[in-house]
Amino acid sequence: MTDVNVSGLSIGILGGTGDQGKGLARRFALAGHPVLIGSRSAGRAQEAAETIGEGARGAANADVAKEADLVIVAVPYEGHKALLESLRAELAGKIVVDCVNPLGFDKQGAYALPVEEGSAAQQAAAVLPDSRVVAAFHHVSAVVLLDPAVDKVDLDVLVLGDDREATETVQALAAVIPGVRGVYGGRLRNAHQVEAFTANLISINRRYKAHAGLRITDI
Amino acid sequence: MTDVNVSGLSIGILGGTGDQGKGLARRFALAGHPVLIGSRSAGRAQEAAETIGEGARGAANADVAKEADLVIVAVPYEGHKALLESLRAELAGKIVVDCVNPLGFDKQGAYALPVEEGSAAQQAAAVLPDSRVVAAFHHVSAVVLLDPAVDKVDLDVLVLGDDREATETVQALAAVIPGVRGVYGGRLRNAHQVEAFTANLISINRRYKAHAGLRITDI
Repeated sequence: MTDVNVSGLSIGILGGTGDQGKGLARRFALAGHPVLIGSRSAGRAQEAAETIGEGARGAANADVAKEADLVIVAVPYEGHKALLESLRAELAGKIVVDCVNPLGFDKQGAYALPVEEGSAAQQAAAVLPDSRVVAAFHHVSAVVLLDPAVDKVDLDVLVLGDDREATETVQALAAVIPGVRGVYGGRLRNAHQVEAFTANLISINRRYKAHAGLRITDI
Repeated sequence: MTDVNVSGLSIGILGGTGDQGKGLARRFALAGHPVLIGSRSAGRAQEAAETIGEGARGAANADVAKEADLVIVAVPYEGHKALLESLRAELAGKIVVDCVNPLGFDKQGAYALPVEEGSAAQQAAAVLPDSRVVAAFHHVSAVVLLDPAVDKVDLDVLVLGDDREATETVQALAAVIPGVRGVYGGRLRNAHQVEAFTANLISINRRYKAHAGLRITDI
């Protein structure tokens, strides 16, 4: 969907010890990218990197934010704003990819949490005025990404943002995962519903016993 | 995705003179359903029914609401609440399918409007406590539904609601359109993001010159 060249780009993943972050780390490392896993604890980040192998390294979030070319934010929503506020200087000038889904859970399943800024991605953009914030990778299934038996992932990654060069870079990055297309999905102001749609995918997974994803038709 | 039998079910479409309503009317009539197109003006409804043919009839919204077995709400969001309030008695006991997308438009494209009740579908449920409100058909392309050259529509219709028999009926109804699957998409409290996602599809259509729709993978 775009011909931007992302080969050699180093990818940092804040919150890379969680399932979503670890799954993405594994796929980017398999595609030949230098991958840096970040965590509050450098030790836990290194342990996660070892389980992934493929040359992935682990470090404290701040070191990852400083070193990586492009930084993915895969932390739980609760800690999202405070973490980004603490890394404003390290993330200045960089493409920051937010894949956080602000969701609540109760007996009836998942539901979208209200976010004062509109969405986690808009919260990131508000906190990081000197970064190039893009929203993407909301609907990836950690189970699928981490499964060595899955060599092709049946998914379109929706990429949202107001900076065209940045969104095209992230579209190209999504496409390094075999089977995945990176599809432009609109401006950041339309990120809320993409984040919240993860609640619907969770409902679909429950009903159909699946690891559901999205494909966009006619493109 | 469900084996509910909907053959012979008569379908009323409030706001059936708009493109989305007319497109759905055409496909349900082609599938052999008695179709009743509703409008504020019975005359305009009859004109729309004639352009569709296939036995479709037109009448005033209130008559359609009273007569049809199942009623689809395809009016512009602006008139949504007032229309439903005026038809509470006629719609009591029936499955009411809301496919309204509360969107605003400006130079940068479409965006989701805030809805006090959470979503148009939840607004319908609040206004119609005696009806069985289901949300569906948000992402259908009127152009595709009305195109006689398109015999198969490449789309999953997400069907949301809290009444399982009602959602399964609407899933089966969606599936009478060739190519379409009716997929359960969660409870009504998760309807907002499905309605709002139409703004993203509009962005995708602009970028890729397409009539984009959704497919859910792994089900």
